[in-house]
Amino acid sequence: MKAMEKLFDRIIQRVNINLREQGYDVGPWVRDLIPIQQFKKFYAFYGITPNHPLDFQFRDSSLAGSYFLGKCKVTGSILYKSDIRGDELKKKDDFFRFKDLNIQLSRDEEFDIEDSYLIKTLVHCFTHDPETLETFFIKDTVSSHYANIHGSPVEGCFLGPFSTIDLTTAHDSIIGAFTYIQAGEIAHLNIDPGTIWIRSPGNFNFFYKYPLDRLSRYIHFQPGSLPQGLLIDFVEDRQEAFQRVFEVVNIEPAVDVPNNASVDRFAVIKPTTTISENVLVAQRAFLQNAFLGNGANAQENCYIVNSRLEGNNVTAHGAKIIEADLGKTVFVGFNSFLRGRPDARLTIGQDSIIMPHTIIDTKEPLTIPAGQVVWGLITDQKELADNSISQKAFAKVTDGMSKGAMVFEGSGATFIAGFRDRIRHILETNGAFFSTNQTKGHAQRNQKISFNTIQPYPDGELEGFYPTIIIKQ
Amino acid sequence: MKAMEKLFDRIIQRVNINLREQGYDVGPWVRDLIPIQQFKKFYAFYGITPNHPLDFQFRDSSLAGSYFLGKCKVTGSILYKSDIRGDELKKKDDFFRFKDLNIQLSRDEEFDIEDSYLIKTLVHCFTHDPETLETFFIKDTVSSHYANIHGSPVEGCFLGPFSTIDLTTAHDSIIGAFTYIQAGEIAHLNIDPGTIWIRSPGNFNFFYKYPLDRLSRYIHFQPGSLPQGLLIDFVEDRQEAFQRVFEVVNIEPAVDVPNNASVDRFAVIKPTTTISENVLVAQRAFLQNAFLGNGANAQENCYIVNSRLEGNNVTAHGAKIIEADLGKTVFVGFNSFLRGRPDARLTIGQDSIIMPHTIIDTKEPLTIPAGQVVWGLITDQKELADNSISQKAFAKVTDGMSKGAMVFEGSGATFIAGFRDRIRHILETNGAFFSTNQTKGHAQRNQKISFNTIQPYPDGELEGFYPTIIIKQ
Repeated sequence: MKAMEKLFDRIIQRVNINLREQGYDVGPWVRDLIPIQQFKKFYAFYGITPNHPLDFQFRDSSLAGSYFLGKCKVTGSILYKSDIRGDELKKKDDFFRFKDLNIQLSRDEEFDIEDSYLIKTLVHCFTHDPETLETFFIKDTVSSHYANIHGSPVEGCFLGPFSTIDLTTAHDSIIGAFTYIQAGEIAHLNIDPGTIWIRSPGNFNFFYKYPLDRLSRYIHFQPGSLPQGLLIDFVEDRQEAFQRVFEVVNIEPAVDVPNNASVDRFAVIKPTTTISENVLVAQRAFLQNAFLGNGANAQENCYIVNSRLEGNNVTAHGAKIIEADLGKTVFVGFNSFLRGRPDARLTIGQDSIIMPHTIIDTKEPLTIPAGQVVWGLITDQKELADNSISQKAFAKVTDGMSKGAMVFEGSGATFIAGFRDRIRHILETNGAFFSTNQTKGHAQRNQKISFNTIQPYPDGELEGFYPTIIIKQ
Repeated sequence: MKAMEKLFDRIIQRVNINLREQGYDVGPWVRDLIPIQQFKKFYAFYGITPNHPLDFQFRDSSLAGSYFLGKCKVTGSILYKSDIRGDELKKKDDFFRFKDLNIQLSRDEEFDIEDSYLIKTLVHCFTHDPETLETFFIKDTVSSHYANIHGSPVEGCFLGPFSTIDLTTAHDSIIGAFTYIQAGEIAHLNIDPGTIWIRSPGNFNFFYKYPLDRLSRYIHFQPGSLPQGLLIDFVEDRQEAFQRVFEVVNIEPAVDVPNNASVDRFAVIKPTTTISENVLVAQRAFLQNAFLGNGANAQENCYIVNSRLEGNNVTAHGAKIIEADLGKTVFVGFNSFLRGRPDARLTIGQDSIIMPHTIIDTKEPLTIPAGQVVWGLITDQKELADNSISQKAFAKVTDGMSKGAMVFEGSGATFIAGFRDRIRHILETNGAFFSTNQTKGHAQRNQKISFNTIQPYPDGELEGFYPTIIIKQ
């Protein structure tokens, strides 16, 4: 595996050059995370459908266990069990609205991943950067377990485990574990673990920081060792269930799926799960004794266990919902960990927004009323009071507020309206409203999809490396 | 499946143009052979190994269930469950000896398949045509179930089921069912079913023709219906066993395999089979209660059932051996059907040559002495006498002979020596002598091989069509 080792060293070097100002060496953080033999153990795969224009170009890379859907170029990179979606890439001639500009795309948008090492990272499409609408680049970047790179071109960055960078172009920055950033554009920042930061320049700024001593129970990451904590344990305990899903060529869903809904063949569905109309269950979602009402979606790397979701629920990438009852249109953001107990269920009222990277871990029954906004770390009723507010009250904030460890500046109404808009948009693109308005979304369009597998050289100098692979329409 | 139907019509038209002189229409023969829905049911796959230079280019084609190993270009073609091997393609700068010429290759040899429709056809490499050493072309050609295109560029041909064209370049010709041709170069011929014809211009000519009324019990083929007969029934009865092999991603051999032998993961191995040293079992071989002695090989589409092969045996593509005991270095040629019965075993002595397309179907115990040559249709002792001769006696023929329905012209010594040379060459390239002379062959080199799967568009205008796929080193 000489070539693999060389590639690995080269990527680390490139990221370090970008982070040189901060004197940062990503080597000790990631060098021994994945034993080199793992890179030839898992097939990668890409989807073939008439709905997604095909254009894959893989060169000088290792792609173990990774999944590709949209147009994607990968060069000199290691993508380990990553998930590069692409069913929302912009198309040639589409218009992109940016303030008072209406920018037309000169070609289809595509992913361009170069000199990067992504571990179990979800990359989802549609860059929101008006400077680079056609190219969703990921360059000179290392990201760790269950990071989300969501509509965010990145260059010269290091992303910690369970971090999310959302609708934000990032240059030469370090994003700590479990940190969520949505900030338009950032450069040369080193952001602490457990930071939740949502900024819309001129409109608002939302900021929360986890108490590190308490966050570490859920996730901590140090150079020279694997990410550790409850979040990792939770995922690893359920890893075996995915094995069977990956070891057969075709698999029938273990549950009835209405013909306007879709359950990805790489999802795990355990008894006794109910899939209602217009539901989307993405690859690598895990459902166990879960009720998904009409129009609910379960996105990549999410877990829904012993829980009931009434309908039009968004369960975002990496969110976990355990022993909980969620009303209609409850939104659960990226990588949130919501855990009730069998004898102390968590109840969340209709229309509530659980912000990305929220941890609710309760041993007593806990009820969140309808129409709340909830964030941060909550283990009991008191912390819930400190870390939530009604959307109605929030919308009345005109000049900032602080609550518990959260600080907000700017217009609450804009913040809440933006969030509600985005939730509606997510539901629409996922096909939640198909039965009502006949607008097809992923739930309807992803029903017929073939998956082709690719594997690396099994032996020799190039062991672990994939050949050059070009797939076109 | 509009595009599929169009492609289908186009191929038939092209073949018919090439066969216009003979007023032949292949349409009725093949139009309804494979229901069009079948073309999207099976994944195709290609092998990745450090030992075979990678270069696959698939365009505007359907490849259902087909397997690819060596460099191969497929354009505007339908390959249905075909097997395009390529582990003996010539390399750039290799020399090819033709009479007193020594021709150097200008580039690696590659398959170039265009405007053709191959059904369950085995294509194996290394063209012997000095005019086209770098390109093994298959153009404007239709071939039917279990045909073998072996080292034979073809153009404008129609090959019937279980036919073999071996080391022969063929233009604008019709090859009947179960016909075997090895003739250097042929053009504008229409060769009857059940013809066995081996010609080396200036050296010898071997000719045998099956009685058609008796051959039809084994194989017959008429326009508008599927190929029928015992050979088809035999294969179909065992088709289910292959399903499991294809439906899992990885599979462990169900038998001990010495580390200098290899059993392809797409072979079926039933109890209780023994694999000895330096054995090669190829993809789509079927072994049941089979003993394979040191250096034996079981090639693609062969079946070995309740039989014992002592060692260094060649069981060529599509050969079937049932209830038989074969001495060392027995050669069983392409598509031969050798069937003893549990209470009437067939015994074949050491070094015997069973010519390609031989049928031995005996209900009484039958013993073929060591060192024989055997051909044609044999159901009892008398027919064996009519259809065999000792290699010793054959080698003494200087000016032709006839025996039963077989006619031979030319030098028996050259014929026998050529055959023995070829058997030695086959054993060597398959790795049979590795333990003796350390020359690696397929048995040793094919141990580490990854298989990548490819599938067609599952829906839409291009349903059944594969995207453009380019795989390179």
